[in-house]
Amino acid sequence: MDSSVVVENIYLLVIVTLISVLQNAFFAQKVERECKKPDGHTSAFERLSCANRNCMDAYPTFLAAMWCAGVCLTQAPAAFAGIVYLLVRQKYFIGYLGQTCQSTPGYLFGKRIIGFLLLMSVVGVFNHLLRRYLGGGYKEYVETITNAASALLLIP
Amino acid sequence: MDSSVVVENIYLLVIVTLISVLQNAFFAQKVERECKKPDGHTSAFERLSCANRNCMDAYPTFLAAMWCAGVCLTQAPAAFAGIVYLLVRQKYFIGYLGQTCQSTPGYLFGKRIIGFLLLMSVVGVFNHLLRRYLGGGYKEYVETITNAASALLLIP
Amino acid sequence: MDSSVVVENIYLLVIVTLISVLQNAFFAQKVERECKKPDGHTSAFERLSCANRNCMDAYPTFLAAMWCAGVCLTQAPAAFAGIVYLLVRQKYFIGYLGQTCQSTPGYLFGKRIIGFLLLMSVVGVFNHLLRRYLGGGYKEYVETITNAASALLLIP
Repeated sequence: MDSSVVVENIYLLVIVTLISVLQNAFFAQKVERECKKPDGHTSAFERLSCANRNCMDAYPTFLAAMWCAGVCLTQAPAAFAGIVYLLVRQKYFIGYLGQTCQSTPGYLFGKRIIGFLLLMSVVGVFNHLLRRYLGGGYKEYVETITNAASALLLIP
Repeated sequence: MDSSVVVENIYLLVIVTLISVLQNAFFAQKVERECKKPDGHTSAFERLSCANRNCMDAYPTFLAAMWCAGVCLTQAPAAFAGIVYLLVRQKYFIGYLGQTCQSTPGYLFGKRIIGFLLLMSVVGVFNHLLRRYLGGGYKEYVETITNAASALLLIP
Repeated sequence: MDSSVVVENIYLLVIVTLISVLQNAFFAQKVERECKKPDGHTSAFERLSCANRNCMDAYPTFLAAMWCAGVCLTQAPAAFAGIVYLLVRQKYFIGYLGQTCQSTPGYLFGKRIIGFLLLMSVVGVFNHLLRRYLGGGYKEYVETITNAASALLLIP
């Protein structure tokens, strides 16, 4: 197994993962800067720290869902869903930063995206089992459907 | 490397991961519903949030151990241990929900299962190194042992 | 795809992951032991719990960066950087244990190591895309550079 063949199948997922790592570092830096402000632990720090914790709590779940979906079915829609998730997370964090009361739109933001990734994984595993026991190869058909369906995520 | 060959080796792990993602969502929903109750942040919410945090803290560790064990040795016992871990976690969370004082059985629940997965990974890596330098191929023997040993996890 | 070929490419990463799991268990045990002390929730427990939470928050990010770097480029420098990160984390946690005020050197300890791993991943993906579209195969050259550069991490 040449290593480059592996990279070929996952490089979009890797890029999204790298962006998410950068975003995590951005969040952590925001929290740290707020923490070092002279007026001590204000309510802004509390809100920021809470938003960061919510993001961090959901992060492994998101990574697991995205990688499962990307490896089991196909990587492009999974990576696209991951990008959308990162954008939603950014918006959620910035919403927390502001003083508006529209923050905390829910503990688990991005439920729809996680659901979509889960569905992709289930379809991938199901597809694999069907192909194994029945021999039918309709994977390309499913991949086309998924690529089209991922555009639906953009609808707010 | 055909993608379906990869899926063949990991689909049980993927299924367990999907179940764990669903369980995470279930936990988060429980916490959110408790948070939105009219009587504010009660002690029930505190306990629930604490249980959820303990579960989330241990989640990446569990995922890493399960995937390492499954990829390095063989997937069936690793997935079985993962299922048992999820059941233990569910019981732990439900125990926190109840008013009984038998909750918080420990910070790291499921130590034995994590230990078993670690052992599997160590055996897998060791086996690989042995086969690389000595040429002996007793991996099938080890796999049989592991499959039998995973049944021992059911003993409470 | 023979399973042993996969293990060949990742076994160093698996070893580092196993060590990190053991370290997580060590941290959790420290926190649990402090929690069960008769004098209740002291400031030592607060500090320990905070250090543990910081470590746990950064753990998925670290794992994702290390595995991406190891899979995309080459595993030896990534595993080495992972070991250095674990040492830094250990020092951070022990520093929290002591009564000295030199603890909390920052929210995100090990920024340089995470940065190095990110750089490795970016180089790996970039290299793959270049090879795909241009056909040039200078990956061995990049790997040599990376192996040399990983030694620079030892400079404090």
